[in-house]
This record gives sequence, C-alpha cells and structure tokens, in this order.
Amino acid sequence: MELNFRSDNESPAAPAIMAALQRANEGCAWAYAEDQWSERLDSAFSALFETRTTVLPVSTGTVANSIALATVTPPWGSVFCHRNAHILNDESGAPEFFGNGLRLVPIDGPDGKFTADDLGVAVRATAGHGIHSYQPAAVSLTQSTESGTVYRPDEIAAIAAAAEEPGMVRHMDGARFGNAVAALGCHPADITWRAGVQLLSFGASKNGCLAAEALLIFDDRVAADTAERLRKRSGHLLSKMRYVSAQLLAYLEQDLWLDMAGHANAQATRFAQAVDRHPEASLTYTVEANEVFVRWSPAGFRRLEAAGIQFLTWPGRDDLARFVFSHCTTPAETEALCNAFAEAGAG
Amino acid sequence: MELNFRSDNESPAAPAIMAALQRANEGCAWAYAEDQWSERLDSAFSALFETRTTVLPVSTGTVANSIALATVTPPWGSVFCHRNAHILNDESGAPEFFGNGLRLVPIDGPDGKFTADDLGVAVRATAGHGIHSYQPAAVSLTQSTESGTVYRPDEIAAIAAAAEEPGMVRHMDGARFGNAVAALGCHPADITWRAGVQLLSFGASKNGCLAAEALLIFDDRVAADTAERLRKRSGHLLSKMRYVSAQLLAYLEQDLWLDMAGHANAQATRFAQAVDRHPEASLTYTVEANEVFVRWSPAGFRRLEAAGIQFLTWPGRDDLARFVFSHCTTPAETEALCNAFAEAGAG
Amino acid sequence: MELNFRSDNESPAAPAIMAALQRANEGCAWAYAEDQWSERLDSAFSALFETRTTVLPVSTGTVANSIALATVTPPWGSVFCHRNAHILNDESGAPEFFGNGLRLVPIDGPDGKFTADDLGVAVRATAGHGIHSYQPAAVSLTQSTESGTVYRPDEIAAIAAAAEEPGMVRHMDGARFGNAVAALGCHPADITWRAGVQLLSFGASKNGCLAAEALLIFDDRVAADTAERLRKRSGHLLSKMRYVSAQLLAYLEQDLWLDMAGHANAQATRFAQAVDRHPEASLTYTVEANEVFVRWSPAGFRRLEAAGIQFLTWPGRDDLARFVFSHCTTPAETEALCNAFAEAGAG
Amino acid sequence: MELNFRSDNESPAAPAIMAALQRANEGCAWAYAEDQWSERLDSAFSALFETRTTVLPVSTGTVANSIALATVTPPWGSVFCHRNAHILNDESGAPEFFGNGLRLVPIDGPDGKFTADDLGVAVRATAGHGIHSYQPAAVSLTQSTESGTVYRPDEIAAIAAAAEEPGMVRHMDGARFGNAVAALGCHPADITWRAGVQLLSFGASKNGCLAAEALLIFDDRVAADTAERLRKRSGHLLSKMRYVSAQLLAYLEQDLWLDMAGHANAQATRFAQAVDRHPEASLTYTVEANEVFVRWSPAGFRRLEAAGIQFLTWPGRDDLARFVFSHCTTPAETEALCNAFAEAGAG
Repeated sequence: MELNFRSDNESPAAPAIMAALQRANEGCAWAYAEDQWSERLDSAFSALFETRTTVLPVSTGTVANSIALATVTPPWGSVFCHRNAHILNDESGAPEFFGNGLRLVPIDGPDGKFTADDLGVAVRATAGHGIHSYQPAAVSLTQSTESGTVYRPDEIAAIAAAAEEPGMVRHMDGARFGNAVAALGCHPADITWRAGVQLLSFGASKNGCLAAEALLIFDDRVAADTAERLRKRSGHLLSKMRYVSAQLLAYLEQDLWLDMAGHANAQATRFAQAVDRHPEASLTYTVEANEVFVRWSPAGFRRLEAAGIQFLTWPGRDDLARFVFSHCTTPAETEALCNAFAEAGAG
Repeated sequence: MELNFRSDNESPAAPAIMAALQRANEGCAWAYAEDQWSERLDSAFSALFETRTTVLPVSTGTVANSIALATVTPPWGSVFCHRNAHILNDESGAPEFFGNGLRLVPIDGPDGKFTADDLGVAVRATAGHGIHSYQPAAVSLTQSTESGTVYRPDEIAAIAAAAEEPGMVRHMDGARFGNAVAALGCHPADITWRAGVQLLSFGASKNGCLAAEALLIFDDRVAADTAERLRKRSGHLLSKMRYVSAQLLAYLEQDLWLDMAGHANAQATRFAQAVDRHPEASLTYTVEANEVFVRWSPAGFRRLEAAGIQFLTWPGRDDLARFVFSHCTTPAETEALCNAFAEAGAG
Repeated sequence: MELNFRSDNESPAAPAIMAALQRANEGCAWAYAEDQWSERLDSAFSALFETRTTVLPVSTGTVANSIALATVTPPWGSVFCHRNAHILNDESGAPEFFGNGLRLVPIDGPDGKFTADDLGVAVRATAGHGIHSYQPAAVSLTQSTESGTVYRPDEIAAIAAAAEEPGMVRHMDGARFGNAVAALGCHPADITWRAGVQLLSFGASKNGCLAAEALLIFDDRVAADTAERLRKRSGHLLSKMRYVSAQLLAYLEQDLWLDMAGHANAQATRFAQAVDRHPEASLTYTVEANEVFVRWSPAGFRRLEAAGIQFLTWPGRDDLARFVFSHCTTPAETEALCNAFAEAGAG
Repeated sequence: MELNFRSDNESPAAPAIMAALQRANEGCAWAYAEDQWSERLDSAFSALFETRTTVLPVSTGTVANSIALATVTPPWGSVFCHRNAHILNDESGAPEFFGNGLRLVPIDGPDGKFTADDLGVAVRATAGHGIHSYQPAAVSLTQSTESGTVYRPDEIAAIAAAAEEPGMVRHMDGARFGNAVAALGCHPADITWRAGVQLLSFGASKNGCLAAEALLIFDDRVAADTAERLRKRSGHLLSKMRYVSAQLLAYLEQDLWLDMAGHANAQATRFAQAVDRHPEASLTYTVEANEVFVRWSPAGFRRLEAAGIQFLTWPGRDDLARFVFSHCTTPAETEALCNAFAEAGAG
C-alpha cells in the first residue's frame, strides 16, 4: 500500500472537472480567451465575490502571482511577504522576472503569518532613502499560509490598512484559497476586497482542477490591460483558453470548490487529532486548513515511510514533515494514515 | 449553418487526446514534470526523430518559441526571421521579454519564405559594427510557413549552413510542423536536425490537442538547463504537467499527429482546387499545407460570409482572406465551402 | 601631418568647458545632483527653450535616448525611427534594455529623414492586431540626422501631429542638436516643443564638452520620476554630478553651444563646396550640418588616406566616406583637407 | 564656518587629477575606450595588482558593481552580501536591473562584516529546492565596509573558499578600496585575487577623482565580453572615455590613491580618539578606515550642528551619526571638529 500525503499538487482532477472539459470540447470556439466560457468568468466570479471582478484565467499559480505583482509594482518597487512565501522561495524568481527586477522583502512571523506591525517595521527598515531605496509598492499575503494556518478577516484588514496608508497595493496568494474560506466559514469577500485586498490569485489546480487558476482584480484602479499584456508576453494567453475557463466555471458551480476544500480540511483535522494523541510527535503549527506539519524523531518518520506512507521532508531537517490532504483523500486513507502513525509511534 | 475556417486554433481536441487525458487522471502523480508521462517524453520524441532529443512540455507555442530563442540568444543578440513570422507579429514581444531585449530582424521573401542568400544580406546589413551592433545569434524558420507553404529539406539545410558559419543557432517554429511533414512526405528528421535545425517548437494544440506543445532540443550544446529555468521563471512549469505530457504521448502514438495533419492538408488542397477553378478569385500563395489564402473582390467575400462561411480577414485588406483546415474539418464541410464559394462567385 | 575628420566624438573639450570644470572643483558640494550646478539646470534650459523644462544631466547620449524612450514606452510598445538611427544601429540595444524589450521599428526614407506619411504607413503595417501586436508608443527623430541633414520645423510638426493622433510620444535625439539649430537659424523651441516634441536628448559631448548630455522634458505629462529612477538604476546618477552640470551650464553660456556648432557647420560647408567642384567625387546627401558624406572611387579615398587625412568608411562599402567637422576644426585644417582632396582627385 | 564631514562623495577632485584631465585634453583621440589612455589601463592595473587584470573604466561605483554581478550571475542566481551593503540599500535595484531579476540575499553580521560560516548558513537557508530556488551564484564583500571597518586577508580568503566550493563567484565592492589597503598596510593583491576575489569594483571618485571607477577582472574565466556588452547597453561606454581613463592613470601614479586614502584614514583616527575621550559619546564600530560612526544624545548632535559641523544622520535614528574624512580634509578641519565635539559635549 502506498498512501500519498506529499502534496495536493499530486492529486488528480475531480470527475466534475473532467466532465466539464469534455463538454467544452464540442465544436469550434473563438481563440485567445474570446470563447463563451472565458467570457462568462467575469460575471461568475463577480457573483461569487459580490463585487465587480475582472478575471484572467491562467494555468499556474506562479504566473497569477507574478502578473499580479508586476502589474502593481514598478521595477524599483518592493513587495513585502512572509519569509516562507511561495513567491519568495518556490518560484525561482518569477515575480522578479515579470517585474523586471522588483524586489521581494521577507518578513518573519510565527505560524506563517505576519502582522500589520511587522509590515510597518519592514517597510521602515528598507525604505526612506529616496531614489536610492526601493519604493514600497505592494504586500502579498498567502491564504491559507504555507504553514497551514489562516489569516482572520480582521488580521487581513489591519495589514491592508497599514499597507494602504503609504500607498501599497494588497495582493493575496490564494493557492489554497478554498481551504481558507472553508476553515473560516466566512464569505470569500470577507477575506479579500472587504478586507482591503485588491488582487487575488485564486487557486484551483491543487483543489480538483487539472491546470486552472484565476487572477482576480477587485479594484478598477489596477491596470487590467497591463495584466493582460503580461499574460500575453509571457506566453500564457492560451489559444484554446476555453479548456481552462471551463474548469473554473465547473469549479465554482454549486460550491464545488468549497466542498472539496472543506473535505480536505476535515481530513487534516482528523490527522491533527491523531498527532495530538501521539506520545512523541507534536504539531508544529495550529492546523487550520489542509496541511499538517509534524515534529517527530527521525526514526519515527522512517518507520512511517516503511509503512508505505508518503509525505514531504526537507533537506537537512529530519525532524519535521508535512502531510497534505486533498479533495480526493478518502476517509479510509486518512484512517489508514492515523493507524500507521499510531503504530509507528509504538516503536 | 455556420462553417468555421477561421483558424485551427479554434478547433476542439481529438477524441483520442481526450481519452488520454482521462486515462492520465488516475491516482496521484509527482508534480512539476516528474510524473511518468513527462518522463517518457524524451524517449518518445527521440524515437520519432531518430536522435537523442531533450523535451520540455509547455502549454503554448509562444512560450516554446520564446524559451528556445532566449536560451540561445544573449540580450544583445539578434534573431533573423521572416517578416510574417508569428514571433515577430503575433506574440506581443514575448521573445524580447524572455530574451531581455534581444532583437528580431525581419527578412522579406515571397511565399512566406526566405533563402540562405536573403539571410546573408540581412546579417551583413545589421551587424559588423562590433560592440555597437547587435550580434547575430539565431535564425528562426516557420514550418509550415505563415503563408501555408513549406520549406523543402534542401532549402532548410542551405539556410542552416549559412547561419552556422557565423555561429548562429537554428530554430524552427513548428506550430504546424505536422502539416509540413505531411505535405513533404519526408521523415521529421529531414527538415530538422538532419538539415541543421537545433531546436524545434513542436506544435500540437492546433492539430488536435487542447493545450500542448513541446520544445525539442536536438543539440547537446544547447543549454537545456537554461531552458528549464526560463520555463520555471515564466510560470510554465505546471504542477500537474502530466496532463500536458499525456496529450503529447497520445498525439505521437500510431502517427496520430501525422494523420490528422494530413487530413487537414487534404481538405485545404481540395478547396485550393475550387479556388483555382473560380472565375474571379485566385490563390495568393501555393497551397502546400492546411492554409489557403485567397485574393478576391470584397463583394465576393461578403457574399461568402452571408452564406455562413467564417474565415479570417485583416484590417484594411478587404481583398484577401485566409481559410484554415484542421484535423476535424469534415469532407462534407469542405464540400459545403467549395459549393458556397462557387455559388458566391456567380454573383 | 594627420588630420582627423573621423568623428566629432574624437575632438577634445573646449577651453571654456575645461575652465568651468576647474571652477566647479572648489570645496564640497552635495552629491547625487543636489549640488548648486545641477540645481540651476532646470532654469537655465527653461530660459533657453522659453518653456518649463525638466533636466536630467547624464554622461552619454545613449543613456539620454534610452531613458527617454523607456520612460514613455511600455515593454510592449514600439518606437518608430529612421533605419539609420543611432538608437537602432549603434547602441547595442540600450533602448531595448532600458525598456525591458520594447521594440524599435525602422522607417526608410531618403537623406536620413522620413515623413509623416512614412510614419503612418509603418504604424499601420506593424499594429492593429490588438494584444498580439506591439502598441505604437513613440517616435524618435534625429536632429541633425545621421546623414548630416536637418528636419525643418514644419516637417517635425507634421510628424509630431501624425504621431500624436494615435497617442504616440515624440522624442528627438539631439546628439548634434546645436548643429541643427545653427543650420536652420531658428529658435531651439521651433524644432522641439513648439513643433510637438516632448523629450529631447540634448547633446554636448560631441560639440565641445568632455562627457555631458541632458535629457530635457518639455511636457509635464511625461513621468520625470520614472526617468530619474531609470537614471539611478542604470548607474547614471553620478555622485559628483556637479562636474557634468558645470559643463552644461558653461556650454549654454553666451550661446557657446551655438557658436561652436555653427563653426563646425561652416567648415563642413566649405568642404562640401570642394567636393562639389571635384571632377569625380560627389556628395551623397545635401550638407546641412557638420557631416559630409562623399561618394568616390576606392582608389581616390586611398590616395586621400595616404595624404594623412582620416575619415570614416564602412565595412563592405569602399566607395563611401564620412567627414565630420567639429568645434575645434580650424579653418586651416579644413583648407588642408580641401587641398588634399583636390590633389588626390588629380590622380 | 561650515565643516563638511557628510560624505567623501561631496569632496572635490585632487589637483593632480584635474591636471591629468587637462593634459588629456590635447588633440583628437579615438572614441569608445580605444584611446591611448584607456588602452594603458590593463597594464597599469596589472602592474599594481601583480597579475593579469582586465579593466573596464566606468563613471560610477553602482555600474561597476552591477556589471560585475550581472556578468557572473544568471537571472535565477542569488548574490550574497551584508545587510548594510550599498548594492542592497543604495542602488535602487541596479544589480537587479542589470541582472534581469537576480536576487540579493542579505547576511547579518556585526561591524558591517560577515564570516564564512554566516555565508554557509545563508546559502543553505535559501537554496536546495532545485529549480524552484534561486541558485547561489556570487558573494559580494564591501571593502572597507559600510561601517568603516575592514576585512583582513584571512577573513576574505575564508569567505572566498566557502563561496568557491559550491561554485560561487567572489566580488568585492571597493568603493573605498584605497582606505582598506591603507588601513591594512597590505599589498592590494592580498585582499583581492590572492584571497580568491575574482572581480573588484575599484573606487576612485570618493578618493580624489571627479567620476572614475574601474571594474577589474582578475580571473580569465569571467566573461569580460559580457561585461563590455553590459557597459555598452547601459550607456556607460563613453565616447570620450579618455577623460575617465586619464583620471585613473593619474590616480595610480606614484601611489597617489594610497596616499590620499591614508590621509583620510589618519583624520578619521584622530577624530575617533576624540570620541573615545568624550564623556558621553561612543564609537559604534571600530574605526579602521575613513568613516566614524558615533552614538550620542540627540541634543549633543544638535549642538554640534549648531557649531557648523555637517555630518550624516538617518531618518528615525537621532542617536547615531556618521562622519566621513576624505583626501582633502585638512588636519586643521579635523582639529576644528575635535574641538567642536569636545565643546558640544560639555553642554
């Protein structure tokens, strides 16, 4: 038996998404996002978010993030993010590439989060020398965070207010946005535009799609035409965009996105309880979404691997592991993991 | 009745491709092109081309072209291409973006083609002033061309030899590569590496896939790791790359790619004969692949549109139209076009 | 005897400029263009041009041109210029570098000039395909031109009007601006802002300075702060900018710039008359500024070289040569050239 | 009385440098660094450093640093430097601009310095995730440091060895290189190529020149032709480069550079002693070169300003000030500062 908890990136697509792809494959359709699926995205997302939303469908979260940041940040502008942020650590400099040398400034903070005060300190420490310094231009929050935690609406609003005062734009990397909304039980607007977020990378690939993400723009002052040019120039304006857009439409339908994310979260919660009960292992962070970070002995993790459980570890860190739960993790699989974990702990 | 001959970009995917997608959607798979589908691409394409080939699956032809050119061209290098080339006219500067300001130099030539001599003239006209000039770095051929014609193996070999002498790299934009191979009845190697081409953008989206292209590197001296970095930094390393790679594998299987392209070409040929028979209209270029360019009266084209035929025209050019035939154009549709064309001609 | 007519770039600085440098070398001065010399530039140039002018002192014409174009052109914007333009042929892609992949579009035209109609044709030929095309963003005129001719005020106004209509910005590369003003006998405003030019690269290095150029912005809608950022990020904000600014101030004083340019023009005119009188050689272009292009036999040019005359030839063009006259070409040197030319012609 | 200790950037040029400029202003000279002054730089610096050295004269330290780093770092490469480094804080992203989005990674460390161990920790913390991470490419040391301290030869050698092991290139920002050599009393080779440094930004502007810096390449494996292209494309290949090169030659002659730097250091030492004797103020860092950082009461600093002493403070830090001594600070001025300081302290 092999059970994969390495990453939600490794999960297959949901049946409803595959069915939507198949339905979209009828006859000809205009190219370059002028098809009927792509043209329905603005209204579908505007309805979901209860505000006028401009939507750019794309294939990856990296490009959604990079276009968002490069649209609102000049090459001499800085973007503030958490030290664990995907844009900082996992995109090989895509934001810098799209942004022609913009700079990411990391902010430390517990549980994968930082506060409005932390942001203020970081801005003051890196700006203030006029044309010689980078100019603070944007802040990017990850929701849910890389630590499997979530920002609450008031935390986001406080950060957004602190950013707005010196004129910085607010972006959210929502690669696991569904997991955050499911965790908070709030309206998606509550942690985005109502809290001051102007651009959202709305993730879908990790949560049931094949390759579909959407860059959402909630604020008319953001130059959507610049975003479109960046998408085109980076080779991301698919000729047959209908296949991306059809995924997104099906993903929104009847709250599929939220149900799948909630399901994944529930599996994570169940495993978190198993970790809590474990005599040796412990949770690294509060488990709020679909990721569980566990601190344990290297020997313990090796026993778990020997039992056929797959999870993520980091080079040089043999006492820490990450378990991710997805839309297609079955309760039986979670149960099997919990059992294997308990048995390995007995060693 | 609406019959669409606007672009092969508007065609749906072939059933075999959809079936392959569905098969690839079983269980978990490693992310970021480390899945079993992606890992079979090198051997599949190496077998097809009869030489060791490094393959980077991507989603669009624009990114395949841009990565190819930026990999082999320094920012102060120039790339020579036909004045009608897609990289010059239709990518909004993607090659310049990926290549940090490389320059494209257009070459004029009849039938969408240029010769080795034309290349020599263009190189001499734009280089030679040392560090003050751009440095000739690469040549890019489109096969089949934007005019629906094809370069013969000896024409390609002559251009490649002329390029190689001053150290220029040879790239082929094969957005319609299958149509060219089908037209020539040659081995795919004959118009690529055997003729001196080092990188090929191997197109599949236009000819039966949803969104799948492959950047092929035939020459070990080309820095494949640079190409991979460019793919990553531009947001084109899909986490679930298996869905692209599965399309490509199915596309190659049992010469599906070649059969579909050949079918499209045959439809174009049939329409070209109808144009030839027409009392007023005429062919702009020799029809060799799946595109037919027609010169006719504006009134004639309007009558054809009124008959429900869709085709492409250009702003300010009302006496020229393009008709494109795809893997899914049925003989009945071609027949209907020919009839409508003949009838419109009677007006 | 060696007489150098190769380039005004090779001339030394004028005594008045050296004296100004020496005077500026007293005591301390604020760094980074906040010194008293630099701070007087805006008013000095505003007075000269009779309009509010923002001035950025820099060290080279290449950077003045590149900052100007990158300030007003997005990366997906195109800049139209003559096929012989310095920005196209002699800057190794500096505009593309500063402009993150903007594109230069060459326009052909006799005598180093193009017309408003030529511009319209070029714009229509390269735009019009929406997001897939580059967006026409700017036009750049060289004054005096690379052929030693000058645009008249009405010619400039016509081009500027044609550019303004589709929203394009107007830039002038005035590497030899003084020579143009001296040739036309007009007010400097007549061929710049009064004719619709918004940015001027005002050259001084070729005409008596050591290394001093000024980017002038006549239009408040041009983002001067972007220009300043580009200067800083390209390493062109000298800490001791006073030495550049002091050159510029001295250059303007008592019309020194105009006198020196007029002197150079007069020498060129004298040699042009000698060419006209020559039985074999002929002028390639009308001589209006300080450059003389001569068509002659290769043998003739070799005899002239043997007589100790230095001039510029191009690789592969042995029947064409350029003679440039500068602020420090003495009438005796011009006379010597004319004599050598006449004698060589006798061969 | 106004006494300026704000920055050595504000000092005038030395008489010997002005005299050299004047001598270089005789007759014509080939343009674009092909003049006789520029062509002597390689041998002059090779003699000084006792190794074959390739020299690119430029106008600013920012461009020397940026070309150096962009030459040896791919866009997806990271450069490690101290958190106070000029390249990080004072160049508005010039390295990122030249390097097309390379990343600077700050390292903390006391006295403006970091160690080989610190470097190792920083590299491990930011790399290791394959194509998803930036690739460690270079380390940049500032000598003397931004804190007025100096790295000893063995410290540099240890850092260079730690960098070399994973293939990183070693660069030194020597904006105040002379001050470091004077402080250490070593041979310039001892803290550069003999200690493993491959590229040096050799500063001269702060220490007696007008605008002259040299990028020195000690290692033949560094692509000098790439460096030259970057200089050209950034507009830094002056047509009249002779004036920069003449400054550099005069600067090296008879150890002028070292004498001037030693003089400045001596003044700093004298003031440091005055600070040491002061009842309230204290030195922030060991004074080893020409900069003195003082911690004192805000009221104390205000009294000093009232006495006509100019020095540098930072926004939001009213208890810290920097005093810089230059080649032209006279002993009398230093004495006056010491006296004013003592008197202000009495308040």
